[in-house]
Amino acid sequence: MAAIPSSERTLAEFVAISSISGDPARRGDMRRAAAWVAEQLAFAGGRVVETSGHPVVLAELHASADAPTILVYGHYDVQPSGDEAEWETPPFTPSVRDARLYGRGASDDKGPVVVALETARAFHESGSLPLNVRFLIEGEEEIGSPSLPGFLDGHRDELTADLVVSADGAMWRASEPSIPVAAKGLLALDLVVEGPSSDLHSGRHGGAVQNPNHALAAIVASFHTGDGTVAVPGFYEDVAPVELEDIPFDEEAYRKEIGVPELHGEPGYSALERLWTRPTLEVNELRGGGAFTVIPKEARAHITCRLVPDQDPERVLSAIERHVVAPPGVAVRIEAHPGAVPAYSIGVDHPAVRAAAQALRAVYAGEEPLLVRIGGTLPAAVLFEQILGVKTLLFSFSTADENLHAPNEFFRLARLGEGIAAWSELWRLLARALAPPAG
Amino acid sequence: MAAIPSSERTLAEFVAISSISGDPARRGDMRRAAAWVAEQLAFAGGRVVETSGHPVVLAELHASADAPTILVYGHYDVQPSGDEAEWETPPFTPSVRDARLYGRGASDDKGPVVVALETARAFHESGSLPLNVRFLIEGEEEIGSPSLPGFLDGHRDELTADLVVSADGAMWRASEPSIPVAAKGLLALDLVVEGPSSDLHSGRHGGAVQNPNHALAAIVASFHTGDGTVAVPGFYEDVAPVELEDIPFDEEAYRKEIGVPELHGEPGYSALERLWTRPTLEVNELRGGGAFTVIPKEARAHITCRLVPDQDPERVLSAIERHVVAPPGVAVRIEAHPGAVPAYSIGVDHPAVRAAAQALRAVYAGEEPLLVRIGGTLPAAVLFEQILGVKTLLFSFSTADENLHAPNEFFRLARLGEGIAAWSELWRLLARALAPPAG
Repeated sequence: MAAIPSSERTLAEFVAISSISGDPARRGDMRRAAAWVAEQLAFAGGRVVETSGHPVVLAELHASADAPTILVYGHYDVQPSGDEAEWETPPFTPSVRDARLYGRGASDDKGPVVVALETARAFHESGSLPLNVRFLIEGEEEIGSPSLPGFLDGHRDELTADLVVSADGAMWRASEPSIPVAAKGLLALDLVVEGPSSDLHSGRHGGAVQNPNHALAAIVASFHTGDGTVAVPGFYEDVAPVELEDIPFDEEAYRKEIGVPELHGEPGYSALERLWTRPTLEVNELRGGGAFTVIPKEARAHITCRLVPDQDPERVLSAIERHVVAPPGVAVRIEAHPGAVPAYSIGVDHPAVRAAAQALRAVYAGEEPLLVRIGGTLPAAVLFEQILGVKTLLFSFSTADENLHAPNEFFRLARLGEGIAAWSELWRLLARALAPPAG
Repeated sequence: MAAIPSSERTLAEFVAISSISGDPARRGDMRRAAAWVAEQLAFAGGRVVETSGHPVVLAELHASADAPTILVYGHYDVQPSGDEAEWETPPFTPSVRDARLYGRGASDDKGPVVVALETARAFHESGSLPLNVRFLIEGEEEIGSPSLPGFLDGHRDELTADLVVSADGAMWRASEPSIPVAAKGLLALDLVVEGPSSDLHSGRHGGAVQNPNHALAAIVASFHTGDGTVAVPGFYEDVAPVELEDIPFDEEAYRKEIGVPELHGEPGYSALERLWTRPTLEVNELRGGGAFTVIPKEARAHITCRLVPDQDPERVLSAIERHVVAPPGVAVRIEAHPGAVPAYSIGVDHPAVRAAAQALRAVYAGEEPLLVRIGGTLPAAVLFEQILGVKTLLFSFSTADENLHAPNEFFRLARLGEGIAAWSELWRLLARALAPPAG
């Protein structure tokens, strides 16, 4: 097994590269990060491969023709750092405090990628690799993986595997090990209300015309009943009931953590059921006019729906389109964003989930891992299923509280050793679990 | 009568001074503009007088102790120029095209002020002044006249008059002369909805909490019924019915001008009745969140109500406060802006209105002037009534279509000569109309 201090140094090197995929000025850093990953995987033939956008890194380690093959997925790109004044130490100057490594991307997804790299290196060095391993580390996860579908489609042969093991997708809580078995889908759209041909003075023209702000509010208000249920007919039509396992969840502690006077949402479901198993329609932005006396020419809402298994983004979009009726005096249009993603799930009895649970028990003193769900979206897992026809096991060692996408992102350094131990155990277990039945 | 070319030059000089009261960097230009006005009124003892904000210019011309006294009101400050790229010629480089003088403030209110100045100069030079005239030209109209109440209160003796004649308050249309007999009041407030203590990821937290955008939309939607009637109980309580004179108004031409698919508002009233005689509640701004997947911590609306005679801003505010109920899971507060203004009106049979109509008939070939109403607000007229106890006649020669508060503001140069002729006739008529009845 690789020594922990070495993997910490490796992670610090990786975090120091400001590989922000969404910043055109960082193209050089993106290339440096891809080259760095390929160099780490030199023992596995690591190489940078061009795509229509940022490059991917591919590699493979061969164990035997009879052994199953896994495809390890992760990403080397990171979110923008946001306002650097909000960081206690600069985002691309890795800094260790309280056994945590701080820096943009430390948790999402560089720490977990280092776990995967170091696991492979250890097996390679000890000559004991139990299964074939392919690597696909992409550089566009934080911008929606626009090149990934085309790349998967064009490289099916090189990427054939029995399972994807993803280093992305954080553990739920730091206090107990967990395995995600579902993630919600995503449908994003803009609702645009158009009124007069230019902004009007609300004193001179108020009362004679429909105000786009009023029309937008009326439409947005029609999306939910007062109790928080989505009021769009057909929205819940394909939603299958889900029985959650017995998961400890303290609603009052959660309420305090997020700082609301009370939790709110669909009656008849616990907060955890609403978070994990119920689709949502959230208005992320309202925008119209300004702090002046205008009737604005336009008002808009940005809306995202999180979908659950069996919901088709197209059918949900159609339900919303049928529901939205333009009030008198304005025109309304819906602009669906491209790239809607259905929900992803893997059976709680899938051999990979069972192997993951066993690996976690081995590392965490027999503690039974929780089978959890993710309110966010994992487009890559959906693409692997749709294009490569293979399920994805989410086996990340970051934790959801590590300030992903926020200032002062960090990674718990203990997770490096725990992760490498768990990944090593997982690969040994998968070698048996994924093997074809004896003939 | 002063020669027209001279008054054009005078106006160009005035417009060239960038007296933007809302721009702290223009304090020097504000002082230059005040000094320029005082210099124009040197023959009447014009002087710059300090206030708690920008200075005012005072002057007076004495005709006789028996004659009535008018107080001429106008303002030397202007709106900010906005995006200079939208101006065909620079805002503070006066430019004549098509018999119009273009420049910020040309119409609001420098053109009309020059009409008043030139009228006074002509009477002074001819030695035929028919009544006593005082001048009050302020420098804070475009920022809500914050110093005016205190100034009026502290200078009652110097400002005593039988009538205010305002050079501010534009004519309705260029096609016929008009006299405003009412202006709406103004109540401005912000509606603030507060949810979680920080922005939340709408994937991770959606469904468990009230989204402030949803709560704001529900409240805003509750302000109007679908037909455009204000649905706040008590909002219309003190509104007296108004019979409009027979005013030609082409609703279809108006609809096309402002570019809406159809006009919209309270059933049972014509568009002109709604514009002129009905109070309104308009949401000028909706703002919450951003184009990301957040549940924002806060969402806000900026709202202005335009009030009609007999409505008390405080009572309307109370009605709104009673109506707004916080949805579950959020806190809601209403922040009323200071300086609410009730509506202003002058009787259609007031001697000053009759004199104004006669003066306009004399200049415009006998055409009967329209008695019109203003959807905007005239705080100064309200203050003159409240503090000095005197009515205001609005007798401006700018026109509402002259891009006030917008790029490419202009003033029709023909209005200089027409205005000076009409003001001269008005003063002669007021000398008789305002005289105390013979004993």
